[in-house]
This record gives sequence, structure tokens and C-alpha cells, in this order.
Amino acid sequence: MADKRVKKVVLAYSGGLDTSIILKWLQTTYGCEVITFTADLGQGEELEPARKKAELLGIKREHIFVEDLRDEFVRDYVFPMFRANAVYEGQYLLGTSIARPLIAKKQIEIAEKLGADAVAHGATGKGNDQVRFELAYYALKPDVTVIAPWREWDLLSRTKLIEFAEQNQIPIAKDKRGDAPFSVDANLLHSSSEGKVLEDPAEEVPDYVFSRTLSPEEAPDKPTVIRIAFEKGDPVAIDGVKMGPAALLAKLNELGRANGIGRLDLVENRFVGMKSRGMYETPGGTILLPAHRAIESITLDRGVAHLKDELMPKYAELIYNGFWFAPEREMLQMMIDKSQEFVTGEVTLKLYKGGIHIIGRSSPYTLYDQELVTFEEGKVAYDHHDAMGFIKLNALRLRTLAQRKKKLGIK
Amino acid sequence: MADKRVKKVVLAYSGGLDTSIILKWLQTTYGCEVITFTADLGQGEELEPARKKAELLGIKREHIFVEDLRDEFVRDYVFPMFRANAVYEGQYLLGTSIARPLIAKKQIEIAEKLGADAVAHGATGKGNDQVRFELAYYALKPDVTVIAPWREWDLLSRTKLIEFAEQNQIPIAKDKRGDAPFSVDANLLHSSSEGKVLEDPAEEVPDYVFSRTLSPEEAPDKPTVIRIAFEKGDPVAIDGVKMGPAALLAKLNELGRANGIGRLDLVENRFVGMKSRGMYETPGGTILLPAHRAIESITLDRGVAHLKDELMPKYAELIYNGFWFAPEREMLQMMIDKSQEFVTGEVTLKLYKGGIHIIGRSSPYTLYDQELVTFEEGKVAYDHHDAMGFIKLNALRLRTLAQRKKKLGIK
Amino acid sequence: MADKRVKKVVLAYSGGLDTSIILKWLQTTYGCEVITFTADLGQGEELEPARKKAELLGIKREHIFVEDLRDEFVRDYVFPMFRANAVYEGQYLLGTSIARPLIAKKQIEIAEKLGADAVAHGATGKGNDQVRFELAYYALKPDVTVIAPWREWDLLSRTKLIEFAEQNQIPIAKDKRGDAPFSVDANLLHSSSEGKVLEDPAEEVPDYVFSRTLSPEEAPDKPTVIRIAFEKGDPVAIDGVKMGPAALLAKLNELGRANGIGRLDLVENRFVGMKSRGMYETPGGTILLPAHRAIESITLDRGVAHLKDELMPKYAELIYNGFWFAPEREMLQMMIDKSQEFVTGEVTLKLYKGGIHIIGRSSPYTLYDQELVTFEEGKVAYDHHDAMGFIKLNALRLRTLAQRKKKLGIK
Amino acid sequence: MADKRVKKVVLAYSGGLDTSIILKWLQTTYGCEVITFTADLGQGEELEPARKKAELLGIKREHIFVEDLRDEFVRDYVFPMFRANAVYEGQYLLGTSIARPLIAKKQIEIAEKLGADAVAHGATGKGNDQVRFELAYYALKPDVTVIAPWREWDLLSRTKLIEFAEQNQIPIAKDKRGDAPFSVDANLLHSSSEGKVLEDPAEEVPDYVFSRTLSPEEAPDKPTVIRIAFEKGDPVAIDGVKMGPAALLAKLNELGRANGIGRLDLVENRFVGMKSRGMYETPGGTILLPAHRAIESITLDRGVAHLKDELMPKYAELIYNGFWFAPEREMLQMMIDKSQEFVTGEVTLKLYKGGIHIIGRSSPYTLYDQELVTFEEGKVAYDHHDAMGFIKLNALRLRTLAQRKKKLGIK
Repeated sequence: MADKRVKKVVLAYSGGLDTSIILKWLQTTYGCEVITFTADLGQGEELEPARKKAELLGIKREHIFVEDLRDEFVRDYVFPMFRANAVYEGQYLLGTSIARPLIAKKQIEIAEKLGADAVAHGATGKGNDQVRFELAYYALKPDVTVIAPWREWDLLSRTKLIEFAEQNQIPIAKDKRGDAPFSVDANLLHSSSEGKVLEDPAEEVPDYVFSRTLSPEEAPDKPTVIRIAFEKGDPVAIDGVKMGPAALLAKLNELGRANGIGRLDLVENRFVGMKSRGMYETPGGTILLPAHRAIESITLDRGVAHLKDELMPKYAELIYNGFWFAPEREMLQMMIDKSQEFVTGEVTLKLYKGGIHIIGRSSPYTLYDQELVTFEEGKVAYDHHDAMGFIKLNALRLRTLAQRKKKLGIK
Repeated sequence: MADKRVKKVVLAYSGGLDTSIILKWLQTTYGCEVITFTADLGQGEELEPARKKAELLGIKREHIFVEDLRDEFVRDYVFPMFRANAVYEGQYLLGTSIARPLIAKKQIEIAEKLGADAVAHGATGKGNDQVRFELAYYALKPDVTVIAPWREWDLLSRTKLIEFAEQNQIPIAKDKRGDAPFSVDANLLHSSSEGKVLEDPAEEVPDYVFSRTLSPEEAPDKPTVIRIAFEKGDPVAIDGVKMGPAALLAKLNELGRANGIGRLDLVENRFVGMKSRGMYETPGGTILLPAHRAIESITLDRGVAHLKDELMPKYAELIYNGFWFAPEREMLQMMIDKSQEFVTGEVTLKLYKGGIHIIGRSSPYTLYDQELVTFEEGKVAYDHHDAMGFIKLNALRLRTLAQRKKKLGIK
Repeated sequence: MADKRVKKVVLAYSGGLDTSIILKWLQTTYGCEVITFTADLGQGEELEPARKKAELLGIKREHIFVEDLRDEFVRDYVFPMFRANAVYEGQYLLGTSIARPLIAKKQIEIAEKLGADAVAHGATGKGNDQVRFELAYYALKPDVTVIAPWREWDLLSRTKLIEFAEQNQIPIAKDKRGDAPFSVDANLLHSSSEGKVLEDPAEEVPDYVFSRTLSPEEAPDKPTVIRIAFEKGDPVAIDGVKMGPAALLAKLNELGRANGIGRLDLVENRFVGMKSRGMYETPGGTILLPAHRAIESITLDRGVAHLKDELMPKYAELIYNGFWFAPEREMLQMMIDKSQEFVTGEVTLKLYKGGIHIIGRSSPYTLYDQELVTFEEGKVAYDHHDAMGFIKLNALRLRTLAQRKKKLGIK
Repeated sequence: MADKRVKKVVLAYSGGLDTSIILKWLQTTYGCEVITFTADLGQGEELEPARKKAELLGIKREHIFVEDLRDEFVRDYVFPMFRANAVYEGQYLLGTSIARPLIAKKQIEIAEKLGADAVAHGATGKGNDQVRFELAYYALKPDVTVIAPWREWDLLSRTKLIEFAEQNQIPIAKDKRGDAPFSVDANLLHSSSEGKVLEDPAEEVPDYVFSRTLSPEEAPDKPTVIRIAFEKGDPVAIDGVKMGPAALLAKLNELGRANGIGRLDLVENRFVGMKSRGMYETPGGTILLPAHRAIESITLDRGVAHLKDELMPKYAELIYNGFWFAPEREMLQMMIDKSQEFVTGEVTLKLYKGGIHIIGRSSPYTLYDQELVTFEEGKVAYDHHDAMGFIKLNALRLRTLAQRKKKLGIK
């Protein structure tokens, strides 16, 4: 358990029942001053109620921080990650993982400003989020005290939590008295659900779990065709309309939602060592990934593209495991960003009932050279006679191996 | 150019106009005996016409080889590759790449049996297939002479080819007189199209190019739900019906075709150095990949899964570049195969208008442990207090770095 | 702390003061039966005194296990690791890391046989060895209880330890009363020293720390020339004399010792998160590594050799971190072992005052082909005209990039 | 063969017999103007004789370029490569590989300035150097014509070369009439020898081949102790004396030479497909590598260090294969350079009869923290109780695997 002699703690506060209980528990257990930090990362909830609730729970006005981080989140976290085409375990778009470092960073900034010695979060003791929050805290403020109530307290059943809330005059919405049928995390990139009704990986995810996408069956019977413009690896416009990072991702989410795009039912390997089953909805991101790959396909050199592909799993793992602020992630990022210098141009996509179909791409920086590739003999660089030498030298070591086998009479 | 003193050459012969011209050209240019090899890899054409045409062109009966390789192709080439979740450049399922080594191997076997000193193929001088054929030839018979007519002859326009065909009494189907609007390769795994009308990557692929799939729009309005059973990483049954490798892949192709699944419009980087745009239809394979990942998701250990993911790009590149018979591909394969020991179980998928949605997976060897993952404190291995130590030691180096920054006054 | 309800514990027992104290502490704290396991891994100490001491401390005869593991250690742990050319952080030959899994495995085997429910080791709470022991325990017996006294007890100073020893009638050698000036680990592969007098990495290691090697200055003024024969990647004979694994490594140690070979002063990164400075003496291993590389240099294909080199850091890290029994280490090992099929032949080395100089290598399976490499034009596979095509296709993407720069006016 | 319509060619000209013959051959074969470029990369030959010889062979004064590139070579090529700890195939310090791109770059600069349309080099058709020169040419000037006389002409024996020289009034030194017993390449980083007397890899390299180092036996009987100071990964001073890049490397060479350091007898895998045996002398570089690793060992974070180690083989392969100007090498370099930000400090080494022994290292930016590592319980970040949680979560997946085995009754 964290050191009891804590004076001021910055709590990542959503305004919901659980973090309100944490708020009170921190006050009563540590006898410390609580500073709340509530961020809008696009989770789709208003922030003002959180402010009011914090006040109600006795937090001083100057200790209540509420911030709209949507643009910062998309510009400095989501887009850099998509430059790398990052997917964890071949499929997961890292929607939860990428939000934690930003929240942690803001908590630490507030702690530094107000001289707080501790930070607290509401992540459980079994998941990845505790790791992501805390690695970020420690990386940014090595002497900080971290309080993780779910690992410390004895409020280990719903009944006990509700009791504690009642004893402490914390308002309880009716539908929060019982256990939730699953738990949710949401931000502008995605919404994830896990636990309870989702726990048997053989059972289909029930319809009521989805919140952010129509099902493919509900989506329109006609495809939607869109054009995404990229500059240096980042999307900057849709159908010719320039947009800021958050607005653009919101627009992609809307397009994805309407077309039944972005549902993912996945069993993944947690950093803390067990497998878990999650259901993710990432409508905009699911469109963005192949679109980004498509613009890269004509603007990136092969050597660069393959190096990126080889390093991607490690990069994605670093983000998943919570090492956003580790120097090796920063090194990889620098390399990835460098590669995006000419990743500029337009991609045309067809969205249809859950599917994304690239149908065209163009760029002022294209490396696709019709003269080279055409079956007519090009005038320039490619002479098909060169292929023979190319093949023969590539074959040389294989022939030497075959010669050895022959000599040894090995089949 | 290959050594003129060639006595017997084994030609990969499709029975079509182009390889018939090659057949004659080999006879007239090299004055050598030609042996034809025609294989059924599931390309969807009958083989007997090829046999007859070879006879017509003067090939001795005992020099005409026709073989059904569908099961061998799927069992020994396609399935091993899918065990690795191989995709080239994030998307291409390697449908053409994986067929070449098998054809080459059979040509070499015939050459060894009949004492032929040369082999020939009909791949052009600009593509990857020449490399794939020839690396395989050399790896299996280091002293073989390779004849690649498209790199050697002067029949460089359609007019010249047709002239040569006419002069040599080669029958010409009416629709073969003009240039084809695109070129096609097909086998049981996929059908690919490239060239001419597909050359501008900004232009949508015209409808008439697709041959193996309905468009998502044409697909049924109701989803199809299927169960695929896996044993040691390979699919063995669909909806409880056991099938051999080729039959199973054919069934998946049928399911994919009907549901508009498996179209891919891609710009890729060729081994010979330029970018090219291709259109691929891989209906069954496109279903198989996520199904395989799904069964792996509950049966593979994280360390193994991540190692596989890190090595996959290299493995896929080896296959794409034609190094199937290289020892490093075999080393990687051995490792991948070892990993599949317990990749056994069932996956349920929903197919709908181009989309594949995993909705359940189960296995007698599952590593997914509901007791571990549940939010209720498990009785067994997981104690959430352990998380603190885990995080603190993972954070230690980051804290040390932060301490250094602090000491140096670096932001 | 481990569960108090432990009945029987298998202790890794050296017979020294520290593990004798642990023995007593286990009896008094847990009230459990203690089984001792003492192994000869070539650390250079006799085992019978350990047996007697265990008896003296009240351990039943049938609970005292003493085993000579030298051959098993070298054959199944050291040699497989050297097949991979494993070095951690570019330099460390993993001498301590590789011994822990074997000791742990034997403890678990005894636990299974005698129905013990716990195991204990004498590694401290700050090092890597606790991790290596315990990961192996858990991997082999998932329900085992692990007792790590150094993390549990309050005997945190030398004074307290000695007091406890005196109170419990544990004999104390005179030179063990004070703190040791550094701590040592030893086995047939190496001897390591760390702590106290070695803690300042700017200070030279004092002469008295070295125990297993002459200094280069003390070594003879004449070089020693030896021939090492390899079979499938493992050394099997020195100067024509066949030897078993342990005898061979002992002989190499002797040769290394005499010639001042194998001292390494290193600052390394521990798995538990901090840097530490160690001094290693690995006389035989330091000879073996370049000798193995030399025999590989003529018998391994380039593709295989480079794949091994790329995977080696990960393999070494797995061993260093204690993941010997993890499935990904086993996968890598299988691949590495496969690569060694033809790594058979002889290497001649000159040993001289700390240096190892390869002066020759030969193999019945050599891939080094003098005809290919000679400047005279070979008759066989290499035609220098092929080089042009090889270069031009390798250059193609670079030329396309340069063309883009030119078009854009970029320097 | 290159296009005959060449007007001006920039030749990499050493002033020796072979490149003088090339010079004449270019004039007579291509009827083109020849521009000579002679560079001092520290090969240890004077440049003025080359200038005079070029004049004698009819080259206009304004077409003779002679340049001292030593500082540029070391600063912009050698040091960046050592930041990566680059070694090819575990041993080779890339002394030849790293020099070619610089020479090629200068030739292209001259070609651009003087409007030359071609470049020529004197590398043979069997080696790596032709690839390195030409990939660099093409990467920097995609439309350049490359002339590689050794692949084109018919002067394939020493006799024919001498005849050609005599017919063209090229002065021939007496000792150049016969075949050289081996061929040499030299620059400030190293000297390499290969061919003829070195071709049997079982035979020891004869003494007369070495030119740049004393043998370990000849070296002094007393060790030399030196201190190398690093700034951001590059050596900047020896024993407190600041030096420019070339001067510093020259000083290290001198120290290495005197102490018998830097000889390497190696069989390596060439990019063009065969194995070759070379003898390398890299006295300064052989000291620099472990010194650089030593300063990194206290200043680099583990995550960064391990990422560097994993990428190093690829980076070294790129340089070896001639891809210095490829964008993926530049991406890797950028990442490596970023990592060196705090690689500043001093390393103390003992040089003795061929051996290099690190005996101390210190840095104002050290991450080595004596309080963390000491066996006394630190006050700060490390609590040894954390180790238990760390181990248990790392063990979790291994325990789950073991549980599965148990359930299945697998040993």
C-alpha cells in the first residue's frame, strides 16, 4: 500500500460513482487533499456534471480541473500511432492504451503545479490500465506516490461499495446499484467493453453491448464513397474539407458508425499475464488504418515500408504495455515520423456494411511509376535482361547448398 | 541467354496460347526436346485440352505430364503459410507466390527422372514470378539450365507473337489475337489480375476484372454463420463436416464468393524493385486468416504469439521473394509448426457482404481462464497485490531516467 | 510472504553459511520439513561437506539430495546456448543465468517425487537470480509455493544473520563473520563477482577478485595453439582427443585460465530494472564462442547465419531474464538446433595472453568454394556479368527515390 | 555493358597501375573525356604522385581532382557507424564497406559540377565493392551511366593487362608485373587483404600479409592504459587531449598497432552470394567498439540498448551490402543518433598484446545508481518486496501453460 503520509493527491476523476467513491475513500483513508482532474477525450460525456459532483463532494473550486483534450489526444497520440500502422496482436487498434498516457501526463502536470505528492486512478488490479497509468506517472515524476484504490481497499463487492457510498452521502444513480453487465472504456478513438456477459469467448457478444456502431445489417444498402487527404502521414481532410484532428476523427467515426464499421471481438494477451476477451468499436480508426496503408503504398520506399512492418509489433506492444513515455518508444516514433515526410496524397474508399474497400490512391510524391511497371519495355531504368543476373546472384547461395546436399547424397 | 546446347527442357505448360508459342519457340530456337508439365492447382481449367494441344504441337506422349496437385498444394504450401498468419506488406495473402515453388519442384522432379538438363517457364521479365520459379529451380537442381523466353526472345509485341503462332500452326482463339486488357494468375487460393486497365492506381478496378467473387453489394442480405474446426493450426472441418485440404479450401472459396469476400486492390513492392498494382480475389483465404488468428488467440501463449508476429513480416517476404526452398524459410517454418501443437478447436464466424466477423471460439486446449480474468478475485494464481510490484520494477528504469533529467534540469 | 501452511520444502542448499541459516529459518518459521538439494555444477567445491552439514542441522538422510550435474549442465544447457552464439548486451556469456534453470528443475523433480509443496532458494531480492529460479519453478510446477527468505525475513544485516546462526547452533567459519568484500557465483562455465568493492564502475577490479584465470600479464610468453572439433554445433574434441561435455569445458577452462583468457568487467542491465557491475571469468566459454562462430562461418548459409544473428539478442535476453522454460525460448532453440545440422569440422586457434586468434577452419560440409571466390573466372555458378543485373535491380528503388527528389527539387 | 555514348566519365583513380589501365581503357573504348578523382581516406599513400600520373596520361589539369577526405570520412561515416556498435556477422568492423559511399558521393558531386554523364570504378566483378559503389552512384544520380571495366573488358589475365599497359605507355613498376599474392584495400579505419595466398581458410595467414599491426607477440610486455572521452557517442579525446575525428582515429590506430590489436581472420558471406576469406587489420576501430559499449553501458537505458542491439545486425548488413544511401539506413541512423544524446563520459582501457580490457567508466549522465544496486536496502525506488509481484505476474502465463500440460497429462 502506498505511503500513508500523502498530502495532496491528483485523482483522475470521471464524475461517475466509482471514482466518486475513490474520492471519498482517499479523503477518509489518507486524510489528504484531493484534486480532481476530468478530461474530455471524446468519451461522449459532458464534463460539467463532473465539476458539480466534485464540488458537492467537498473539493475546492481551485482544485477541480476540467479540460477538453480532444485535439491534443488525436494530434499527439492517435495520429502518431496510426503513422506506424500499429495493431496489437494483429488486430487491436489500441484505443484504450493510447489514452492513458495523456491522462497521466495531465495529472502529473497538475501535481507539479499544485505541489501534490500523489496521484490516483480508478483502474482495477487485474487489467492493463493500472500499468499504463503508473508507468506514465513514474516516467514523468519519479518521486510521485501512486495510489491505486482497487488494489488497496477492502471494498471488494458491489454491496460494500454501495454501502460506502451511502455512508458518505455519495449520490447513487438507480442503475448503478447492481453490478454492471460489462465494463466500458470510451474515448474519441474507440469504445471497449469487457467483463461479465462477455467473459465466455465462445459466446457471441450480445447486441446491447454495442454503443458506437450500427451493425453491418442495419447499415445502408448503398455504399458511401469518401476521399481522405493525408499530409505527412496524417489525415487532414475528408472529401476536400479540411478539418482539425478531433473533428476529422469524429467525422470518420460518424461515417464508420453509419456503415457498420469497426466492431472487433477479440481475445487478447494482457501485459499482466492472462488472456481477456474484449469487444471494441473503433469506427473511424478502422477506416483510417487501411487508408493510411494505401497512401503509404505509393509514397513509401520498399526498404522503409518493410522496416516499419518489422518494427510495428514491438511498437504496438510498447503502447499496449504502457511504455508510451519510454525512450525506446520515442526512438521508434522519431524513425516512423521521419518516414512520413512524403506520405501525402489522397485515398478513395468505399464503405459498405462493415467493409472498407480501397478503390484509388494518388500523390504528388508517388513512387509508383507506370513506365517502370508496364509490360512494354520501359525506356528508363528497367531492362528485363537485368533480371537474369539478379536471380542468378540471389540463387548462388541456394545452389551452393544444393551442391553440398548432392555431394553428401542427401535428399 | 541460356546456353544453346540444351537437350531436353521441361516446360511449365498451361495449354494456352502463350506457353504454346514458348513450346514451339523452344523447339525451333534450341532444337531441343520439350517435355510439358501441366498442373491442376485449382486454377479452374481442365487439363485434358492441354494434353491434346501438346500432342498436336508434336510432343511425345511419354513427354506430356499432367497432374492434379490440388491437395498437395493446399496441404504442403497454403496451410503451412497460413499457420504463420503470413501477409505481405500488411495485406497481400501471397496467393501467386505460394504456387510457384510447387510447380518448379514438379518440373525439377520430371527433369531428374527423364534426364532433362533444362527447365522453362512463361513468366515475364518484369515480375516476381520469374524469380520465384528460378530460385526454386536452382535450389533443387543447382546445375539446371533455366530458359526464360520472355527475357530472351524478340517476340515483344502482340503482333509478333501472333505472327510466330501463325507461322508455326499454333491454333489461336479469336479473343487472343489482341492484347488482353489485363493479365491473370489463378489457383485454388486466389486469382490475381494486373496490368493494362489496372495500371493507374487512382482508378477503380472495373467490374469485369473480378471473376471469383460476387461484389459485396450482390451478396445475400442475410449473414452466413459457419464454424471452422482446426487441428494443429490447420482447418479440418466446416460446420462439422471433415474435408481434405483442397475440398476445404474450395468450400471456403464458395462461401467467400457468395458473401462478397476476398477482394483486395493493392499497390505492392515487387522484389525486382518497382511498385505494381494488382487486384486479388482470395475468398477462402480471407476467411481463413482471421479464423486462424481467432483459434490461436485462445490456444497460443503470449510469448509465442508475439514472437510469431515479429517474425511474420520476414517470413512473408521470403515467400513473396521466392525463397520458399531457402533454409531460413525452413527454419522459420519449423518454429511456426512447433507453435501450432495445441492450436486445435473451433471458431464461429459470420460472413456478410464482404465482412468476416468472429463471434466465438473454443478449444479443449484453451489458455483462456475465466477464473483468472474475472473481476472477482481469483482463488488461484492472480493476486492483484502482485500488480504493484510488477509495475514498480517495470517502472524502475523509467524513474531512473526521469531522475537524470531532473538532475540535469531537462524538460 | 509465502503461505505459512507449507509442509515440505525443497531447498537449494550449498552447504555454506547463508543457506544453512535459511535451512534453520525455514524450520523455525514455517515449521516444515526441509529437503536439501546440493548440486555439483562445477563450482569447484566438494559436495560431501554439504551432506554432513545438512545432517548436522537435523535433515533426515532420505531428505538429503546431492547430485553431480556437470555433464547434464554442459550438454543440455551450456552447449545449446552456445549454438546460438548467445551474448547478453553484446558481451556477457550468461554464465550465471544458464545454471539457474537446471537447479530449479532438479528441485521441482525432487518436490514431485517426495510430495513437497514448496521450494526455496538463497537468492537476494535485488538480483536476477530470484527471477530465474522462480520462473523456472512456476513453469514446471504451477501450484508450487515459493519461499524466498531474503525477501521475507528480517535478518537484514550481517550482525543479525550471525546472531541467528549462533542462536541456532549453526557452525560459522571465521572468515564468514564479517561482510564479504564481494559476492560470488560459480559453475563450470564461469565465476562471477559483484557487490561491495566492485560497486564503483569507474574503479578497476582489484586483483584478488579473480579466481579462475591468470592475468594476461602472468600468462606464458608463447602462444598455445589448439584445435577444437565440432559436431552439429557442439565441441566434441580438443587436439583430436574426444571428450564428454563437462570434461571438454573443463579442459577449455584450463587452457583459458593458463592463457589469461575470459575476464570481463561489465556494467549490465538487470531484468529487475537497475544497472549492476559485475566481473566475470569465463575462460572456456570465451574460447568457445569465436571457435563456434568460425566453424559456422564455413558451414552455415548466409540466410541462416543472418537470421540467427538477428534473433540472438532476443534469445540471450530470454535466458538472462529467466525464461529458459518459456515456449518461445524452446521455439527459438528448435530453430537454432536445426541450423546446426552441418556445423561440423575443425577450428584452429591461437591462445595468447588474453587473446584468442582464429587461424584456420575446415569442414567436410564447407560451403566455402574456392572456385567461386577466386578472382579467376569460375567455370561454375558465378558469371561476373550477372553482377550488373543484380546491382541494377537492387538499385531500382533507390533510383526511383532519387528521381522523386530531383522532380521535387530536393537536395 | 554500359552505353557507348558516354561523353565524360568521373573515375575513382588511385594512381596505381590498375586504375591507370582503366583510365586509358576508358579513353580508347569509350572515346570519352576522363575526369580523375583521387581521395585521401587515410590509406597511407601520397596523393601528388596520382595527380602527376594522371597528367602524364593526358588528363587536363582542371579534370584532376585530389581531395583529403580523412576528417569527413571519420566524422560522417566511421563515427556514425560506431554509434550503432555495428559488426557484420558478429565480427567484421566494416572497414571497406564504409569507405565506398563517400568516394561514390564525391564522384557524383564532381559529375554534377562538370556535367559528366558517367562514373567508373576499379572494383572487380566478384566482390561487394562494385555493389557499394554503384548503389551509391544510382542513389545519388539516378540517370548516371556506370562503367565497371572489370565486368566489361577482356583484359582478364595479368599478361593481358601488362600488354595493354605497355601498348599504352603506362609506366609499370617492377613489382606489378606479376600477380600480387593478395589484394589490399586500406583507409584510415582499416586495411583488408584477400585472395590468392589467403584463399584456403584452413591455412594460417602468412606474417607478411599484415601491414598495420604488430603481432601480439611483438607488442610490448607492459600494458598501455588509456582514457577515451566520448561526447554524444563519439570519441573526442584521448588521455585528456582533444582531437579531431581523423587525428583521434589515427592515434587509436597507433595505440592499437603498437599493442598488437585489431587483426581479424574471417570467412564472411558476400552480398553477391559466395563466401570469402579476408584478413582485416582495424587497430583503432577494435579499441573503439568496446570503449563505446562501455560508455553506453552506464548512460543508455536498457530499453534503448536492447532495441539498438536487435537492430544492429540489420544496420550492419545494410552497410555491408552497400545501402548507405538507402532511406531505411537513414531512418535507423536517425534513431541511433537520437539514442546517443547522453552517451558522454570517459572510459579507461588497458591495451595489452592484442587484448583490450575495460577497467573503468564514468559519466556525468550515468544511470548507474549505487544506491539502487547495493545490497543494502536502498531508501529510494527499489523495494525488494516488489520483486515478488514482478515475478508472479511474469510467471502467470508460464503457470497457465503448465496447468494446461498437467490437465492434458503431458510431460
